Amino acid sequence: MTDASPASAPDRIYTAALVVIGDEILSGRTQDANIAYLAKWLGVQGIRLKEVRVVVDDMDAIGDAVNALRSVHDYLFTTGGIGPTHDDITVDAIAAALGRPVIVHPDAQAILAAHYGDQLTDARLRMARTPEGASLIENPRTKAPGIRVENIFIMAGVPMITQGMLAALDGKLPGGAPVLSRTVAAWTQESKAAEVLRRTERANPGVQIGSYPFWREGKTGANFVMRSTSVEQLADVAQQLMAALDAIGIAPVDGEL
Amino acid sequence: MTDASPASAPDRIYTAALVVIGDEILSGRTQDANIAYLAKWLGVQGIRLKEVRVVVDDMDAIGDAVNALRSVHDYLFTTGGIGPTHDDITVDAIAAALGRPVIVHPDAQAILAAHYGDQLTDARLRMARTPEGASLIENPRTKAPGIRVENIFIMAGVPMITQGMLAALDGKLPGGAPVLSRTVAAWTQESKAAEVLRRTERANPGVQIGSYPFWREGKTGANFVMRSTSVEQLADVAQQLMAALDAIGIAPVDGEL
Repeated sequence: MTDASPASAPDRIYTAALVVIGDEILSGRTQDANIAYLAKWLGVQGIRLKEVRVVVDDMDAIGDAVNALRSVHDYLFTTGGIGPTHDDITVDAIAAALGRPVIVHPDAQAILAAHYGDQLTDARLRMARTPEGASLIENPRTKAPGIRVENIFIMAGVPMITQGMLAALDGKLPGGAPVLSRTVAAWTQESKAAEVLRRTERANPGVQIGSYPFWREGKTGANFVMRSTSVEQLADVAQQLMAALDAIGIAPVDGEL
Repeated sequence: MTDASPASAPDRIYTAALVVIGDEILSGRTQDANIAYLAKWLGVQGIRLKEVRVVVDDMDAIGDAVNALRSVHDYLFTTGGIGPTHDDITVDAIAAALGRPVIVHPDAQAILAAHYGDQLTDARLRMARTPEGASLIENPRTKAPGIRVENIFIMAGVPMITQGMLAALDGKLPGGAPVLSRTVAAWTQESKAAEVLRRTERANPGVQIGSYPFWREGKTGANFVMRSTSVEQLADVAQQLMAALDAIGIAPVDGEL
């Protein structure tokens, strides 16, 4: 038993998912840059990114992914499809998924009117459309705002704009203890370290160890990445792992290779 | 009515999905490179990548994604989690999802025995484990093979290795007509071209037009990407679009900016 209320429970884990609206990613034309950026940004907020889905620019595909993920995570982010052109259907798809009508948001219209003046065409006014009941996310770069509705954060697809919107959300979303990481590395085949890794992880509940091999300069190496919410535990496990590697004849490096 | 059998129907569309087994992607530590590469490779084979899911290194998360996607696409690819260490659980997760036992595949064991000789440790032998009834995909780079079971292709996570496995599959998977693309661009805000884009797409069934804005050299531009299976139709629509842009005072570029 604990006296802590749910809102202040220190062990509360906050999770998020991301839906990338993404014909240009699925065709291979564009290399996605939002997944890694959002993942790191969420990590700093104490929120764990647990799943990403990249879907085609289609009402049902977007709606199905949004409905599958929004109910099982604290936060759902989307990127892409909120511009002024005919292929920008994210707002319509999410409104339909939520059973909400689409409206022209008066604050978004005011932002666009201030930015475009008498050049606020019908196409540009599309960027003021939101699901009913939404609030806006500031876009410091190109003005047309992102959208928050329920636990969904509707972001731009262009990384520079997405990053500006995330900066506007910095520190504003409740999160838990950030997952920290620490890396020990070695010039070795990871298979030689496999048993040591398994034993070290098992001996230290609360720490996950991932093994990531690489081939460079004609040599084989591996980074062993430990993750935990405790910086002290990470330091302790890093020492254990380096000693255990050393004991089987693998020279460890304290850090990433 | 048509005389063509299903196997030779010219309009058959082949689709694929990808499951990225991906703690290191979801933590933001690693920038994924497999999605874009696989997307382009599939395009050349005449197979359309329709969905990607990035999931955590967890038996249920992997199994759920695999089972959701394998039945609705012709092909399902996975990347990651097939190495020799404790965090490599993809084979176990997929075998469980299919209701098949995991075996040591004799051909895979022979490949590893030839490569490692008397250094074939228990950890390395893990890389010969497959779901029962699987066949192998050649790995020209580091030998430990990929795995095909039913319509699932289990690939490595390290891009260099994945690309070698895909090379070994080149031209071997039935596909349809490749989706071709052609780009017209302009130094303009995409909102100014929105109505022309919408009209041009509507007038040309079978062509999709995506609009992708960018900001460079202090200027705003957009690439308009047309996709179709017909190179003649793409050439025709590109001419239509350039003429229509020109008519509203936007100077078009024939190609990508």
